[in-house]
Amino acid sequence: MVRDAVKVGLLGLGTVGAGVMKILQINSEQIRSRAGINIEVKKILVRDLKKPRAVEVESSLLTTNVTEILEDPEIDVVIELMGGLAARVHVEEALRRKKYVITANKDLMATAGASLLRLARDNGRNIYYEASVGGGIPLIRPLKHSLGANKILRLVGIINGTTNYILTRMDLENMEFNDALAEAQARGFAEQNPENDLEGKDAAYKLSILAGLAFNSQIHFDTVNVEGISNLKQRDILYARELGFTIKLLAIGEERADGLTLRVHPALVPLTHPLAGVLYENNALYVEGNAVGEVMFYGPGAGALPTGSSVVADLIDVARTINHHVENGIIEIAFHDKKVVPLEELESAFYLRLLAEDQSGVFAGLANAFSEEMVSLDMIIQKRSREGEAEIVLVTHAEKEKSFNAALASIQKFSGIKAVKSVYRVIRK
Amino acid sequence: MVRDAVKVGLLGLGTVGAGVMKILQINSEQIRSRAGINIEVKKILVRDLKKPRAVEVESSLLTTNVTEILEDPEIDVVIELMGGLAARVHVEEALRRKKYVITANKDLMATAGASLLRLARDNGRNIYYEASVGGGIPLIRPLKHSLGANKILRLVGIINGTTNYILTRMDLENMEFNDALAEAQARGFAEQNPENDLEGKDAAYKLSILAGLAFNSQIHFDTVNVEGISNLKQRDILYARELGFTIKLLAIGEERADGLTLRVHPALVPLTHPLAGVLYENNALYVEGNAVGEVMFYGPGAGALPTGSSVVADLIDVARTINHHVENGIIEIAFHDKKVVPLEELESAFYLRLLAEDQSGVFAGLANAFSEEMVSLDMIIQKRSREGEAEIVLVTHAEKEKSFNAALASIQKFSGIKAVKSVYRVIRK
Repeated sequence: MVRDAVKVGLLGLGTVGAGVMKILQINSEQIRSRAGINIEVKKILVRDLKKPRAVEVESSLLTTNVTEILEDPEIDVVIELMGGLAARVHVEEALRRKKYVITANKDLMATAGASLLRLARDNGRNIYYEASVGGGIPLIRPLKHSLGANKILRLVGIINGTTNYILTRMDLENMEFNDALAEAQARGFAEQNPENDLEGKDAAYKLSILAGLAFNSQIHFDTVNVEGISNLKQRDILYARELGFTIKLLAIGEERADGLTLRVHPALVPLTHPLAGVLYENNALYVEGNAVGEVMFYGPGAGALPTGSSVVADLIDVARTINHHVENGIIEIAFHDKKVVPLEELESAFYLRLLAEDQSGVFAGLANAFSEEMVSLDMIIQKRSREGEAEIVLVTHAEKEKSFNAALASIQKFSGIKAVKSVYRVIRK
Repeated sequence: MVRDAVKVGLLGLGTVGAGVMKILQINSEQIRSRAGINIEVKKILVRDLKKPRAVEVESSLLTTNVTEILEDPEIDVVIELMGGLAARVHVEEALRRKKYVITANKDLMATAGASLLRLARDNGRNIYYEASVGGGIPLIRPLKHSLGANKILRLVGIINGTTNYILTRMDLENMEFNDALAEAQARGFAEQNPENDLEGKDAAYKLSILAGLAFNSQIHFDTVNVEGISNLKQRDILYARELGFTIKLLAIGEERADGLTLRVHPALVPLTHPLAGVLYENNALYVEGNAVGEVMFYGPGAGALPTGSSVVADLIDVARTINHHVENGIIEIAFHDKKVVPLEELESAFYLRLLAEDQSGVFAGLANAFSEEMVSLDMIIQKRSREGEAEIVLVTHAEKEKSFNAALASIQKFSGIKAVKSVYRVIRK
């Protein structure tokens, strides 16, 4: 069958939906040339037909009835930009009706990705989800294709713009957490209810998607260890800088001989590490492969046009696939279900800030406690004490987390130690 | 026709060839699974059958006769890793015999890429050249696919590892150029005859390839303005750092309303710019698109396994294309031949170091000369003078290069100015 256009149904015309429409308008000629065929948006599902939109769209395209899209046999591709888990039924229905699906929905792909990809395969179709992680940064396609010759060993990502904006302001402009958060909210980089971002849940969703692809395994979202940045003190950022580090909220996935490790937590990153230069709302993914070594992908992790750029890249791929009659040419799921290694089995270096009595013997006691658990110290800062209280900052060499936790428990019992104020992991490369 | 394997002929078994064979060995299972079919290397062209190799290869695979590969109808794919323009005849012959071609040959793709891509299209085949630029960093595929929805506005690359290694040592370790070069040679990051790297020619080849793809235009290699780093003084790097910059050898391509600009030259880069964090032998490409905004791709720009990683990624794509009978599904040349804008029409900010008489009126004269040409100054350093001689460092705001050149000519005539020691462009973002 020779067709004159690939026809698209759009579910949702919010920020990203408007970005997609805008890109299809301003770059139409180039997109047609790359796709090799016309792309026509036939219907757009909205909640309110009368709402003013950020982009010019013919009102005849709008509908409030999703079946006008899902049941239209002319529509080849459904682009799901509603967000949230409620979109799942529509995505499933679209696949059953042999439509290709493009989605920017990270919650959905993180929790139901493997099942949806199977459904796609069983229907001879595919799901494209470049826009679900990292906004405009190419991540999914490079992991699937450009790095396809590699066994991926490790992913380290700064994949939440809100927290990175806050941490950058705290670091470069000496702001306290609450002030930086307020700034982020004022500038639209943080939501009014920013908990999902601050507590690391958003990053954990995205890590689940990336790790599933990189390690070829189903990821169960609840196996990701998650710690956020709400308790982070500006004081620790200053100490970190003094030691040659900055603090970032990292999403880390690794494949080891004994299984996967999956975690989101703040960590000290050396200032010479490429991730240290990822500032403000930008995102980046650092990837280690057994052939390529280390590569990094950097860019805007959100926004209408950047995210739209990823959606339309997927759309061009789909259009080309349809135009060349490649039925399901590029799906590649062989999702294993790999074991996840508990956090305490990992080796980590730790940063530790504590308050101690300013009296002789305290430091020796500390050093002994670490030494008994075979945790060795890499860096130490002790400044002149105030009011009988000494602040001590330590960085350990990498040790099993179990050993570090034992040492930590033992120093906390120690009478000269008044309080352990902060504990953060340190990455070296 | 159902086939059991995609068969490959390899031209060359040097550093990269050995890397490719190694990757095919260590990651064989994964590569087969991604390609959807077995990949079999059937023949390898070498110059010397007896030479010891960095990888285990059955001696029966080796041949010194290229026709055993080119004329073998069973061979579907030719991987050209000989390098140099002499390889062109083999690439052309392979295409005429309907073989897919993968190449890591930057000289060839920079000077004959458009013509070879046309030949490929006319034969219903394609050329893959991810490995010709940026070693293991995914660049070609992201530009073609992931950013396919964008009009690319600008490329800024650090795409020569030798010069970046030297500049990093000069900057971070206060080394002089000659010492840093000697170190680079000792560590294998610079060749014994490093002229092509130092003078910017290698970067210009790579820029030609990237710009051709990004701007959809044939690039004539001799229209790239090229300036190397051989004359760079450590003193300028120190001043740059004092002003908040580092100095990098940049390859810059832009599409403007009046045409393309294409240039390779050292430039001051703000320390907060993501490219400033690209250290030692690493490479990176910063891309500005009209939808995505700014993204960067970072990683190892050379080496057996990284470059092999790109070659095998291409091979997986080719194997999948062959396996799914997609004849020429993804070629996309519509190479225009766009005008190149002369350098003097560009707007640039400049860094300038000069020696002046330490006498009153000299600085005022300087300031007047700039002001008469409408070039305004952004930053000034003048240190305490020695022996009647003052060293003055200036950074201008961005102006037409024509105006800056006129101001420069006028101050050189000025009697208080003893010498203009250095002139470099400055990039701001």
